[in-house]
Amino acid sequence: MNVNLLIKNAFVMTMEGKGVGMIENGAVAINGNMIEAVGGTEELTARYSADRVIDAKNKLVMPGLIDSHIHTGLSIVRGVSQDMNHWMQKGLWPFLKHVHEEDTVKGSLVNIIEGVKAGTTTFCDYDTSMNKLVENYVTVGARARVAEMVNEIPNDIGKIPVGELYPFDPTIGERKLQENITLMEKWHEKENGRITVMFGPHGPDMMSHELLLHTRELAIKYDTKLHMHLAQGDREIEQMVKRYGKRSVQFLQDINYLDDRLITVHLTEATDEETAIVAKSGASMIYCAGSIGIIDGLVPPVMQFIEAGGVAGLGSDQAPGNNNNNMFNEMKFAAILNKVKRSDPTVFPAPLALRLATIEAAKSIGLDHEVGSLKKGKKADVIIVDLQHPNLSPIITSPIRNIVPNLVYSARGNEVETVLIDGEVIVEEGKLLTVNEEKAVKEAQKVAHEISVRATDDIILAESDLLKMMEEGYL
Amino acid sequence: MNVNLLIKNAFVMTMEGKGVGMIENGAVAINGNMIEAVGGTEELTARYSADRVIDAKNKLVMPGLIDSHIHTGLSIVRGVSQDMNHWMQKGLWPFLKHVHEEDTVKGSLVNIIEGVKAGTTTFCDYDTSMNKLVENYVTVGARARVAEMVNEIPNDIGKIPVGELYPFDPTIGERKLQENITLMEKWHEKENGRITVMFGPHGPDMMSHELLLHTRELAIKYDTKLHMHLAQGDREIEQMVKRYGKRSVQFLQDINYLDDRLITVHLTEATDEETAIVAKSGASMIYCAGSIGIIDGLVPPVMQFIEAGGVAGLGSDQAPGNNNNNMFNEMKFAAILNKVKRSDPTVFPAPLALRLATIEAAKSIGLDHEVGSLKKGKKADVIIVDLQHPNLSPIITSPIRNIVPNLVYSARGNEVETVLIDGEVIVEEGKLLTVNEEKAVKEAQKVAHEISVRATDDIILAESDLLKMMEEGYL
Repeated sequence: MNVNLLIKNAFVMTMEGKGVGMIENGAVAINGNMIEAVGGTEELTARYSADRVIDAKNKLVMPGLIDSHIHTGLSIVRGVSQDMNHWMQKGLWPFLKHVHEEDTVKGSLVNIIEGVKAGTTTFCDYDTSMNKLVENYVTVGARARVAEMVNEIPNDIGKIPVGELYPFDPTIGERKLQENITLMEKWHEKENGRITVMFGPHGPDMMSHELLLHTRELAIKYDTKLHMHLAQGDREIEQMVKRYGKRSVQFLQDINYLDDRLITVHLTEATDEETAIVAKSGASMIYCAGSIGIIDGLVPPVMQFIEAGGVAGLGSDQAPGNNNNNMFNEMKFAAILNKVKRSDPTVFPAPLALRLATIEAAKSIGLDHEVGSLKKGKKADVIIVDLQHPNLSPIITSPIRNIVPNLVYSARGNEVETVLIDGEVIVEEGKLLTVNEEKAVKEAQKVAHEISVRATDDIILAESDLLKMMEEGYL
Repeated sequence: MNVNLLIKNAFVMTMEGKGVGMIENGAVAINGNMIEAVGGTEELTARYSADRVIDAKNKLVMPGLIDSHIHTGLSIVRGVSQDMNHWMQKGLWPFLKHVHEEDTVKGSLVNIIEGVKAGTTTFCDYDTSMNKLVENYVTVGARARVAEMVNEIPNDIGKIPVGELYPFDPTIGERKLQENITLMEKWHEKENGRITVMFGPHGPDMMSHELLLHTRELAIKYDTKLHMHLAQGDREIEQMVKRYGKRSVQFLQDINYLDDRLITVHLTEATDEETAIVAKSGASMIYCAGSIGIIDGLVPPVMQFIEAGGVAGLGSDQAPGNNNNNMFNEMKFAAILNKVKRSDPTVFPAPLALRLATIEAAKSIGLDHEVGSLKKGKKADVIIVDLQHPNLSPIITSPIRNIVPNLVYSARGNEVETVLIDGEVIVEEGKLLTVNEEKAVKEAQKVAHEISVRATDDIILAESDLLKMMEEGYL
């Protein structure tokens, strides 16, 4: 049989089975946007002729990485809010007040380029203005699972004293939910199925009980997932206790919100008991190692979640407090931060990190029927990593194999040579083929400068720790 | 005046002063192997003509990074010992028994290439066979501060039951110390001063009281530093208590070993009180964030050390348990692991991380008169980082500047475009000019394979957690 592409002589990491499913001297046959076969090179070269053959000797072929939680619209203010207290109020908010929708689109494009070049093929993007941002995924050719963030919070929330209940404005909720519905109607399963849409309640504290339930009804109607921040900070818990007399997890349990339709993000403030409740409910958990490490100095209970039987994935969150969106970074931090949390080097071993960025991530966001592993019939989202970089060298294969630990603890993202998404080559020899990267960076640079000019007074008023460092000559 | 090189239109991060010493639209003039001037572009272009001018618009010029503790000889077995208990005995030792000296030289070369391409210009290399390894620094053109590891431990130490005192063999100690003396006589201040030699006692538990003192006398005689592991693990502390009735720090204090001649490495097991004693003594501390995070799941007391007034630097340690040697990785882990240790996002801010990889590192290893900052009269060890990579974009300069946080939290090493060491361009457009990288990787690959064949029986006998993962299909 003839196929479009045959990748051979590779280390093929299928991510099937309980580990990484490594095939030495392996091959992958791709036809159209589908994986036709995965196996040994000898077997596949005998069975298939191909329009194009890639000799991947000393290279690793694996499923594209899945970023299960990212806000690409925020990347236009990358690096403005870390090493500080009050990340949102004093760091992000003074900038965001002055960010226009078209600015977020420009930042998002650079952010998606960053991710794709580092091997991310699926982006679970959760942001405002998603009806605009989604077009970047069309342009780049990446797979996206998107949601509009729905809340009922007025824009001037920054003025509400800390500790007071957020006011809800139902007209805001209605408008944002309508954006999510429009996104669904217009984009779900479009672009050959590359784009799918979820519903995106911003958090249990950010909208009324009624709107939460209404959003869930819509997710059921469209048979899709809900993607939501949960127990993401003590502010959320305080709001919930003040409003409902109970903490977030119990509240959601009581309104029957916890089941396998729900993707929960962070769980930073969840107790071990609450973590187990969420895990056992069938809801998944997205763990953002770098972001929560930098913003809060904390390690969320992902190990407890997994130990309680839950399905978890990794996400890079947002650039103003991570400050990168690169799943190699997340794998490394997930593994090491959890070792340190438990003072035990065997915790969160490298294969687990890889699973949480591939097949477990796919399960977490409900796309494992299509992506997350290399298997006949799945979509051809495949990356090729060059193992001849000094930091991944040498390769040892017996009696132990060092590829997986080196990939997790030493790879940085720039070793990704080729990226295929839905059967199309998007990155080749490390260069993005679909978008003019230089132009995208330039355009984002221009609007970022304009934002910083508009935001100057508010940034100075906020008196953040970072501003103090700037004034004192540390930056 | 005419100079050899003028780099202009750059963000120049001098690392002078208390922060990063940023000059916007800055320039650096280099003549021979020295920095001739640092200042504004307008000022320097008026004062200097140059044989070569580099326009570094949208780029960052900064001092080359300093890796204050690395064992490059171990990198031939990169990635064979992590996610496991008994890192040394079950992970490293079964391999090391079968590593020949010429293998370590080949691995070391790849390791130095890895570091240089990621912006490391000074390597504080502490290993056996240093009389051979040092030649790699000559070949690559890097700056090195080297020591032979001196101990009195027989090669079959693996057979000694855990908990029993190590036997000391004075003939081994004498031989190894002689290697260090030969290194000193042959290499100190050679290669235009690029190579300097220290003495390298392996640890207070690894040699007799007498040999420790003799080594110190030699360091005084040659007026150089002592580089030594200290409080690196509970095994060391147990040995010291069993042999001398006291813990490592108190023992060293009692024999007058603690002063500014001593560079201490790790301090993983030092109590807060011991940490303060070392800091106040004038001895410096090298903190290896990634390595100790992976091998032990711990965060050594570097913050306590700095708070007690000590001078500290960062090191990447060794590739079989880090698994990379890249100071961008170390800066990021140092910052985030310490935030998490104290549950406080303001701990270990980005400028501190940069200082510990540049000027503070230079002070720690006694090279701050030559390197670690950009200043007239210092050696021209300079790197240029391209800030137009998507992960470092956009650049915001006012009223806060996001370059420093993005550099620490998002840069990976591959953004380093140009590396100058001692005034020579070693890396240009990300390519190493002095060594055939492909050939070096191939040669290391060949011997690594041979080592794994020779070591197979011992690896299987050791029954490490990693071997179990391999057998169960996780790797």
